[in-house]
Amino acid sequence: MTAYVRNTWYVAAWSHELETAKPFAVSILDEPIALYRSESGRLVALEDRCVHRLAPLSLGRCEGERLRCMYHGLLYDPDGKVSQIPGQDLVPKQARVRSYPIADRHDWVWVWMGDPALADEALIPPAVGLSDPDYILGHGHLDYAAEARLINDNLLDFSHLSYVHATSFGAGPEFAESLPKLEALERGVRFSRWMVDTYGQSTRKAPVPIDSYMTYDFLIPGVLLMWSGHYPSGTAAKLDYAPPRLEDAEGGVTFTNQAVTPLGPKASRYFFSWGPRRGHGDEALRDQLMELAAVAFGEDKTMIEAQQKVIDRTPEPRIMPTAHDKGVTIFTRLVERMAKAERESLTAPEKVA
Amino acid sequence: MTAYVRNTWYVAAWSHELETAKPFAVSILDEPIALYRSESGRLVALEDRCVHRLAPLSLGRCEGERLRCMYHGLLYDPDGKVSQIPGQDLVPKQARVRSYPIADRHDWVWVWMGDPALADEALIPPAVGLSDPDYILGHGHLDYAAEARLINDNLLDFSHLSYVHATSFGAGPEFAESLPKLEALERGVRFSRWMVDTYGQSTRKAPVPIDSYMTYDFLIPGVLLMWSGHYPSGTAAKLDYAPPRLEDAEGGVTFTNQAVTPLGPKASRYFFSWGPRRGHGDEALRDQLMELAAVAFGEDKTMIEAQQKVIDRTPEPRIMPTAHDKGVTIFTRLVERMAKAERESLTAPEKVA
Amino acid sequence: MTAYVRNTWYVAAWSHELETAKPFAVSILDEPIALYRSESGRLVALEDRCVHRLAPLSLGRCEGERLRCMYHGLLYDPDGKVSQIPGQDLVPKQARVRSYPIADRHDWVWVWMGDPALADEALIPPAVGLSDPDYILGHGHLDYAAEARLINDNLLDFSHLSYVHATSFGAGPEFAESLPKLEALERGVRFSRWMVDTYGQSTRKAPVPIDSYMTYDFLIPGVLLMWSGHYPSGTAAKLDYAPPRLEDAEGGVTFTNQAVTPLGPKASRYFFSWGPRRGHGDEALRDQLMELAAVAFGEDKTMIEAQQKVIDRTPEPRIMPTAHDKGVTIFTRLVERMAKAERESLTAPEKVA
Repeated sequence: MTAYVRNTWYVAAWSHELETAKPFAVSILDEPIALYRSESGRLVALEDRCVHRLAPLSLGRCEGERLRCMYHGLLYDPDGKVSQIPGQDLVPKQARVRSYPIADRHDWVWVWMGDPALADEALIPPAVGLSDPDYILGHGHLDYAAEARLINDNLLDFSHLSYVHATSFGAGPEFAESLPKLEALERGVRFSRWMVDTYGQSTRKAPVPIDSYMTYDFLIPGVLLMWSGHYPSGTAAKLDYAPPRLEDAEGGVTFTNQAVTPLGPKASRYFFSWGPRRGHGDEALRDQLMELAAVAFGEDKTMIEAQQKVIDRTPEPRIMPTAHDKGVTIFTRLVERMAKAERESLTAPEKVA
Repeated sequence: MTAYVRNTWYVAAWSHELETAKPFAVSILDEPIALYRSESGRLVALEDRCVHRLAPLSLGRCEGERLRCMYHGLLYDPDGKVSQIPGQDLVPKQARVRSYPIADRHDWVWVWMGDPALADEALIPPAVGLSDPDYILGHGHLDYAAEARLINDNLLDFSHLSYVHATSFGAGPEFAESLPKLEALERGVRFSRWMVDTYGQSTRKAPVPIDSYMTYDFLIPGVLLMWSGHYPSGTAAKLDYAPPRLEDAEGGVTFTNQAVTPLGPKASRYFFSWGPRRGHGDEALRDQLMELAAVAFGEDKTMIEAQQKVIDRTPEPRIMPTAHDKGVTIFTRLVERMAKAERESLTAPEKVA
Repeated sequence: MTAYVRNTWYVAAWSHELETAKPFAVSILDEPIALYRSESGRLVALEDRCVHRLAPLSLGRCEGERLRCMYHGLLYDPDGKVSQIPGQDLVPKQARVRSYPIADRHDWVWVWMGDPALADEALIPPAVGLSDPDYILGHGHLDYAAEARLINDNLLDFSHLSYVHATSFGAGPEFAESLPKLEALERGVRFSRWMVDTYGQSTRKAPVPIDSYMTYDFLIPGVLLMWSGHYPSGTAAKLDYAPPRLEDAEGGVTFTNQAVTPLGPKASRYFFSWGPRRGHGDEALRDQLMELAAVAFGEDKTMIEAQQKVIDRTPEPRIMPTAHDKGVTIFTRLVERMAKAERESLTAPEKVA
């Protein structure tokens, strides 16, 4: 597998997908994980592999705070320790599976794949949750037969909007013909772009020319947080093309959260939500955006899965970056640097218990 | 593939699956085999691979005692020798495929995978055939996407009944909480268990407390032969927990035959029959048991195929045996010992023609 | 993959499959190729892999004579050079994909897989096109999960007609019992056979005994061109079994074109057309032959895909040629000789730009 950062929070599921006492199977960085919300409401993430004969714990049964393997009945504590082996008095010390730090935040369930001692909830990206009162968000997810890196690359270069989504999003040639503004962040890249004096950058056309602004952060491990909005024509020039305040937008403010999770070497899950800011649209607009997303994100999936197949049959795949790849390059180098540092660190996951 | 014993009889099919003059394809230990019942009724098992261009003989045509490859017409004798090559007068000596010893016994077709010189029908396990007048048996088979060893392990440890089949078989916690009696046999393991003063070990509850007894032999290569029955409360104590006579059971006697055949590295066929002893139940009970088997054996299949998938994605899979694994361990060591002896023997299959 | 000749024309598609300005994906010798017919009608074959990030060009958009990758908009000339990269002024010299010689002939689209400098349209086999006024042809194609070589072998040995197609084509035992006449050609093998004084070699029986003649060339890389017809009983003897003139046939003349294209290591496309010579049958006969072909070519597919599966599971597959394999052997050696010469030649594809 491509190198991915481990000391980071990955989106494992929508929060509402984890019903009380119903184990949920997921795979992150090719590690099988059993998630459950205990009867008291505690979230638990365990290695999905019983120590006895490797049956998946996600086929198990929640009992209070614990999870019982339903093959031969071994009972697991939330920290991964086996607390009971039927037919046997002693439980050996080594009878334990890995337990992952887990958090429920912004209506997503996040799992920390690296050194548990370093798990810091402050590193969870500031996504806008489905339940945020300021927004009216729809949501969904798509499974890709492609590695996460390819989806990240896609989200790090919006020039594809002019081609892949020419009709669905009604994206004009501007996304390809000119470059966005880029800023390297500590854990990602910030993109922004003023589009001046147009009728808007989507199929929803404005009645008069406007200045529209969009900006997104793309953050480790693969989380996109974007807002966009309209301003009166002339605003961009007046601000000397600096970022505007979201609060000053005269309309059309929407927010989208997107997260790419590497399930395995060539399998990924893509989570997304999108919708208008309250006051800038209603449930009908949200539904309209979701219909659009279904089409457009399907277009990405078609292209990226086809790209993966070409890569797979290419003996030594090489790419030829273009001017639009600056964001991809910054992010890719950041990932490589962080992944390398993790491997070299004494606290790298393989060196801690 | 895991080591399996070769000098043994594997169940290849139900006897009634082999209709006269209709070739039947099967695979045992990853070797493709064409079975047929000749026009005179003789059973034949040939390597399913024509010497000419490797077309499968199981797509061929029976002609009297022989089998003709229907690609270019080579005709095979029951011993595997080619007796005719269309368009050619001479048949080269080396034109022959392997022929396997085969037997029709207890309504199963058995194939000997090892040295033909050692094939001894006395080694066929004493199964109860579908046509046995003393029993009323239903039957079926299931194909597993899992290696045979995992199914054997399952059948060698009935503690899983308390979990996998808690609701279907209505198995109580006793199977997991206490250990059965075990006895090593020359070619397998014998299990037995008294359950004293209960209302029975299944969804079919007895009206008064009873002593119930069950025993099964699990024999090389993977054949389970089990009977169980009820005795008046107090019988177990009276017998000092020794095995009772089947004939003394006051009711509830059933018999089940099960056979696990490794088709290939991760593919197996599981044959089963089950039903009451005549006088202990009727066709209605047999049908009820078959419905139960459909549910319960489906539960095993779900668990074992999931277990196989976890094993497949685990770099160096290790198990941690429990007290209930004693039977698994005895059997596994027996298999390893026999397989090793075969490899070392001068009469090992690869050293005989 | 088996060695195949590269300096030769492969059938890539039916001519009518390439609609104007609609890219068409195909794979030959495991190389992904994007075909298109430009707006002016020019045929183009490009490596189906964008230099930027390896997206398939076959998902692209035709623009005049050019093809635009619809991921990030790189625009390709028909010779494979990138002529535009959106958002960037300079196009690097190395920004180009392979372009293949391509020809539209006999209603097939042919692609030259070897050294472009050697591409010679005179080497395109003299097939009879669907639009040939002398014939009334039906057509189709089948995809095989088998390597092309196995289909070639099948077409190079018609003794299989007596078995595989015994009922469909109504082929008698003659095809297997006696050998056809063979002649090595510069780029293939010629087969011919008189069948004397029979009621015909198919389910369409003649009213009186006839002499029937059939002949086909099987040409590099895998193109079969065959005609057959009836002559008055005694013709063969009168001609001393020499080839008759097609024009002298008293009836039953049909022509079939067949082409086998290796898509990848175990995937092939089999193109076929068949029908009567004008004056020897009508559209109804053509349709009847197509129904027959659907059955018979399905029989071949079943056998050959099964053969491929047996080969795949055989550690060191070996064949044992028979008298009927003479044509297979001549053709196979020709392929090996040509492929070897190509590899050794300075003009071999890997040594030319």
